Amino acid sequence: MPMAAPDSDNALRPLVRNEPLRWVGSGDSLLETACLDALFPSGKLLRPTLCVESAKAVGGSHEHALAFAAGIECLHTASLVHDDIVDQDPVRRGRTSTAEQFGIAEALVAGDGLVMAGIAAMLSSGPADRALEASRVVVDAMRHMCRATLRETEIRGNLSCGLPTVLDVIRGKTAALTGAACQAGAILGGAPPAQVTALRQYGERLGMAFQIRDDLLPYTAGDQVTGKTAVSDIANRQPTLPVLLAYESADEPDRQRLTAVFRGTIDPLTAHHDVLDVVTRTGALNKAAQQAHSYAERARAELHGLAQAERLTELAESAAARQR
Amino acid sequence: MPMAAPDSDNALRPLVRNEPLRWVGSGDSLLETACLDALFPSGKLLRPTLCVESAKAVGGSHEHALAFAAGIECLHTASLVHDDIVDQDPVRRGRTSTAEQFGIAEALVAGDGLVMAGIAAMLSSGPADRALEASRVVVDAMRHMCRATLRETEIRGNLSCGLPTVLDVIRGKTAALTGAACQAGAILGGAPPAQVTALRQYGERLGMAFQIRDDLLPYTAGDQVTGKTAVSDIANRQPTLPVLLAYESADEPDRQRLTAVFRGTIDPLTAHHDVLDVVTRTGALNKAAQQAHSYAERARAELHGLAQAERLTELAESAAARQR
Repeated sequence: MPMAAPDSDNALRPLVRNEPLRWVGSGDSLLETACLDALFPSGKLLRPTLCVESAKAVGGSHEHALAFAAGIECLHTASLVHDDIVDQDPVRRGRTSTAEQFGIAEALVAGDGLVMAGIAAMLSSGPADRALEASRVVVDAMRHMCRATLRETEIRGNLSCGLPTVLDVIRGKTAALTGAACQAGAILGGAPPAQVTALRQYGERLGMAFQIRDDLLPYTAGDQVTGKTAVSDIANRQPTLPVLLAYESADEPDRQRLTAVFRGTIDPLTAHHDVLDVVTRTGALNKAAQQAHSYAERARAELHGLAQAERLTELAESAAARQR
Repeated sequence: MPMAAPDSDNALRPLVRNEPLRWVGSGDSLLETACLDALFPSGKLLRPTLCVESAKAVGGSHEHALAFAAGIECLHTASLVHDDIVDQDPVRRGRTSTAEQFGIAEALVAGDGLVMAGIAAMLSSGPADRALEASRVVVDAMRHMCRATLRETEIRGNLSCGLPTVLDVIRGKTAALTGAACQAGAILGGAPPAQVTALRQYGERLGMAFQIRDDLLPYTAGDQVTGKTAVSDIANRQPTLPVLLAYESADEPDRQRLTAVFRGTIDPLTAHHDVLDVVTRTGALNKAAQQAHSYAERARAELHGLAQAERLTELAESAAARQR
């Protein structure tokens, strides 16, 4: 039964939020219970929204992309569940992480179950050739994400890993999937190749802006706002963009302070305070914020010529400006 | 470039073994290194062989199914890598498990990477409609596997969980994927619906026979033969078919011995000796072996009417009789 396309997020959000239920099940096994706990209450739904809005921007209907978008959200949530095992993070979206609540083994399998539910949803979407092409794009992005996740563990504590490496990790961990979500939406909406490429670029740049901003939040917002512990990156000795920018422009005493923090011998709260001090004083926070805005700007530029791109324009703007 | 279809396993095995390399990469990142370590040296290659032989049995060429079969092997290997995290098993295929060698976080992400490489391989196989249908079948089997993996953790130490539950776990953990491998091969080979159904049934029953036999091996073969620790199931207090059969027909003193073992307070070697004693004396080993043969027999019966099913017939026979 065809439905009128919703005009606003208010109409779209419940659809995007409820769709994963169809693919995960209603919770009558431990697997489903753990998967649902990870999915709900849902987060920002950025990736599925990007997918649906991209389909609409090329003249498709939201229905062309809704199941697929739900699949992407399942894959994204799976990556968060597994990330919290890798990083030993007890908190996610302001709540106990799946690993903390159900146990590591259970969270691992729940993540696997979410991956399979997500792929099943994606493979169910529309004509075979489009579903296949869009699925390939997303699966490829997920492979990039895996590579970046391990690269991230390799550079722990390493302040000399270099900006290109950190930008590569951001690309793999976030921008690959936001780019794929937009590209898949465009494919499902029946876009010509030029629009598919433009939306892919848009999504990647938006993802870069989003993640750079995300790495700034521990220095600009409290735990209660971001829903995760502000000291998590530092506790994991993870060099992020603001820290690398600070390290590259710092004088010797500040470099030594950062080095001490990333050796992992200072207690996390003091460490966070020390890093906050250096990233602020060196202007690294401002530089990183500028980079986020620049990516967002270049994302918006790709939307030129698309019919219904207001929402995508807004999303690019808010990606670089968000406070949570 | 078309190749002559290989007549025997000797010709097919290298193809099945080398194909995953195309999808995982050559090892120039930590992710690829860990994935390759998990894949090679390869195991029995049962599932990809089933997939390719099923395609051939319905008149298709092995080439129709080769990339897809490689994808299934990647998914299966991913499940082993994750299983060894769940079960805390340090040994797999006679070697150090991926988790033991690379660390839990690294093994987790390597498993995720293998899943994505596997799905990419599957989605690349042949005409879009067939690739999509076959992929759906395999993804659905993987969801069953996740459900069964968590069900398995739930029944740890529980000798009263009942035979149907244990058979369900076997179905989900093994038979679903062997069935899907055969069904997918038939779909890719262009089989009519009746042959697709028959090969699905064949694969499921073969998988039941294979897994029941697998659960018997700790009592009939040494570590050096199976390549995994004979006491692993008991150390994990995992009720398997022979143990449940023994429990259901044992007298009170033997029940108490089993109960003590599955309470987890007895050292693993003594525990293994006690269980071996009871499963032998109660005739449970023979009963389970008979069930394996019965499933294999019923698997073979499904092959009636297929053109080139000699190899599938052999595989069913060896599934129930194998000593490793």
